[in-house]
Amino acid sequence: MPDTSPLLTDLYELNMVQAYLDKAEDGEAVFEFFVRRLPARRGFLLAAGLEDALQFLETMRYSAADIDWLKSTGRFRDNLLDYLRDFRFTGDVHAIPEGSVCFPNEPLLRITAPLPQAQLVESRLINILHFQTLIASKAARMVLAAPNKILSDFGLRTAHGAEAGNFSARASYIAGFNSVANVLAGQRYGIPIVGTMAHSFVQVHGDEMTAFETFARARPEGVILLIDTYDTEAGARKVVELAPRLKKDGIAIRGVRIDSGDLIAMSKKVRAILDAGGMKDTVILVSGGINEDVLQGMKKDRAPIDGFGIGVNLAASIDAPSLDCAYKLQEYRGVPKRKLSEGKQTWPGRKQVNRAYGSDGRMSGDILSLEGDKQNGEPLIVEVMRGGKRLGAVPTLAHIRERAARDLARLPEPLRQLQQGIEYPVAVSVALKDLAVEADRLTKK
Amino acid sequence: MPDTSPLLTDLYELNMVQAYLDKAEDGEAVFEFFVRRLPARRGFLLAAGLEDALQFLETMRYSAADIDWLKSTGRFRDNLLDYLRDFRFTGDVHAIPEGSVCFPNEPLLRITAPLPQAQLVESRLINILHFQTLIASKAARMVLAAPNKILSDFGLRTAHGAEAGNFSARASYIAGFNSVANVLAGQRYGIPIVGTMAHSFVQVHGDEMTAFETFARARPEGVILLIDTYDTEAGARKVVELAPRLKKDGIAIRGVRIDSGDLIAMSKKVRAILDAGGMKDTVILVSGGINEDVLQGMKKDRAPIDGFGIGVNLAASIDAPSLDCAYKLQEYRGVPKRKLSEGKQTWPGRKQVNRAYGSDGRMSGDILSLEGDKQNGEPLIVEVMRGGKRLGAVPTLAHIRERAARDLARLPEPLRQLQQGIEYPVAVSVALKDLAVEADRLTKK
Repeated sequence: MPDTSPLLTDLYELNMVQAYLDKAEDGEAVFEFFVRRLPARRGFLLAAGLEDALQFLETMRYSAADIDWLKSTGRFRDNLLDYLRDFRFTGDVHAIPEGSVCFPNEPLLRITAPLPQAQLVESRLINILHFQTLIASKAARMVLAAPNKILSDFGLRTAHGAEAGNFSARASYIAGFNSVANVLAGQRYGIPIVGTMAHSFVQVHGDEMTAFETFARARPEGVILLIDTYDTEAGARKVVELAPRLKKDGIAIRGVRIDSGDLIAMSKKVRAILDAGGMKDTVILVSGGINEDVLQGMKKDRAPIDGFGIGVNLAASIDAPSLDCAYKLQEYRGVPKRKLSEGKQTWPGRKQVNRAYGSDGRMSGDILSLEGDKQNGEPLIVEVMRGGKRLGAVPTLAHIRERAARDLARLPEPLRQLQQGIEYPVAVSVALKDLAVEADRLTKK
Repeated sequence: MPDTSPLLTDLYELNMVQAYLDKAEDGEAVFEFFVRRLPARRGFLLAAGLEDALQFLETMRYSAADIDWLKSTGRFRDNLLDYLRDFRFTGDVHAIPEGSVCFPNEPLLRITAPLPQAQLVESRLINILHFQTLIASKAARMVLAAPNKILSDFGLRTAHGAEAGNFSARASYIAGFNSVANVLAGQRYGIPIVGTMAHSFVQVHGDEMTAFETFARARPEGVILLIDTYDTEAGARKVVELAPRLKKDGIAIRGVRIDSGDLIAMSKKVRAILDAGGMKDTVILVSGGINEDVLQGMKKDRAPIDGFGIGVNLAASIDAPSLDCAYKLQEYRGVPKRKLSEGKQTWPGRKQVNRAYGSDGRMSGDILSLEGDKQNGEPLIVEVMRGGKRLGAVPTLAHIRERAARDLARLPEPLRQLQQGIEYPVAVSVALKDLAVEADRLTKK
């Protein structure tokens, strides 16, 4: 059975659509997806997942087997089953492009569609956009903490399932990671794949020198040797001893990897051993417990490390494994809507975000306004799908990654430094505040 | 492109296998998967994911397209490509059955297979077993914190991708959850599906009473009404007002849901309103921010809540979104192996776990020993696959869930109460300690 299908949704979507169809309640609905607030210690978001979301909308079809199964549950009537059989998403989508820096309450995506359609796509849209934005935002912190270092996603094994492993690779590459260990992600997304060896490889060969030489001869391009299975410094000395023997056969040792112990102290010792052995060009890669705090610490301590393999801290965003997000009805049949539940009020209407920049080219503030409400600054939200059809060419991942690099460079310096307690200014326009009052007035409780 | 394929693996597995094939290094290898230590605040693990792991092993095949793509990377030689083309997993698997309580250092799974096979399956095996065990272990805490309550997995939207949404449903159901909102999980696993309505449903109808009546008539079996869109107490009073009108048409309001505010205080107010309205049988369900601490608090405060919809706290295991786990070489060509890296030493050899029970029927202690090393107590690890073929019938999810219920009932009371700082005793047998010394002696560093 496939991992995804249109049945990858919450039952309440189908319940509601059954009720809507019974009453022919299919007016134009506007929903927006946004993050309510940032996790502790975070200062910004990096939007990701839009391409997968649009692909989902374009290709969402209920198979005959899906319909048969829904029917077999006895929960749904023929009007719903017939509707699903012919389902096509025919709505419009506006969004902040992937790779853009954004902030709480700014809609990453807006769906404008007949009500049943807009409701049926909710669960999976959130499932895609939440996770990729979560990971891109986490990865961006690591990219900022380790300028000019090689960062690789090693997170597949403890990512939350298969899709998380693939999406993590995509989102972190957008944020500026250089490569990924997950081969399928390399195939799917064209991300450079990287890999060294496991400790088991050394253990199988019993002695480390044999393991190193066997590996280097089997994988002569870009040899990276894992040197911490027994004693890291001894491992580094073996690398120095082995290098001339390999060189005779035209094989260079490109780097070593350390996966345990005090990585800062050990990297300095290993660098000294390699340098003394004439291996100044051999890079040091490390893995194990790397996050943005560790990266900042290593930068401060000038650890001679060239690259980092980052696992679960990236792929499960350990310090903040979720974002407080919502997909909310903002307008129905032309009437503005907002949720009034205690502590969960939202801004109604079809929104736009305009961003101002200072004379230094850095972002200086956003204004959350309504579509058509003229504001200064660069508008962030653009139309990406009309009548169920994509507008324009699918942006390449390289293009999205460039946008992220440009936006991260334009962050205010305290946010680039990952300083805590810095809140980027997002103002709310007068027109939007007025609309909220109007929405409340129109609400018949 | 599919979400999973044999390429869902770390590149280093393929690198190592290339080197192994070059040297015909294909002796019998023994790897074990285990959790190194528990997250803070956790006292036990609940094993899950084995069935998916075994299915992965049984069906792992490289397609012609996979081989072509690997070839196109220019990284691999024909001996590897030919090997992958004919790949079948032919090894043996021993495991702790799903639904069993277990502890750190106890192998959840052992692979005994020719070295290249045992290495190629590593990444995906960890990806499956880590996540499902993580979620089952988290869900079990909620089950223990809320005895006799209805618990439903509402986590799809903020689960980390599609597979996480499905695996979370499976793992939490094993742990004792009652139902899931994710329809696909219902289809795949036969888990009861549940769903109510969203706030948008109320907002679309403008006034709450119309929304409630429309929903009840569209979904007359098991009507659950969401009453907190505007004012929760007013919502409850409308339910009381509506009930007689629906009753005339044979429709009962089974329950109400509250998704915001002070859930304990509000549930008491709503219970009073419903009771005063003659609706003593109408249940109260709540959602939003529920975790095991909240559940314990609600139990202590005697909140009149019948059921809980639990989202991201379950599906992303927010307080501990990963387990420190490993898949380690324990033996190669009959020689015991263990990792000596700083702070990461492991126990070598093919292990067994025996569990003792007190006169009260509760677990009193485990002993980590070697296969064939006779110990008292119930052995936990059983053979589940031989020569690549499953042994015995596939256990039903109901059966696995019963095992979990039985094991959770047998936990020492402090662990059942989720008391912190309680360490369940896991002893290490003399024979295993001796083997570790022997493994160290045999290691030619």
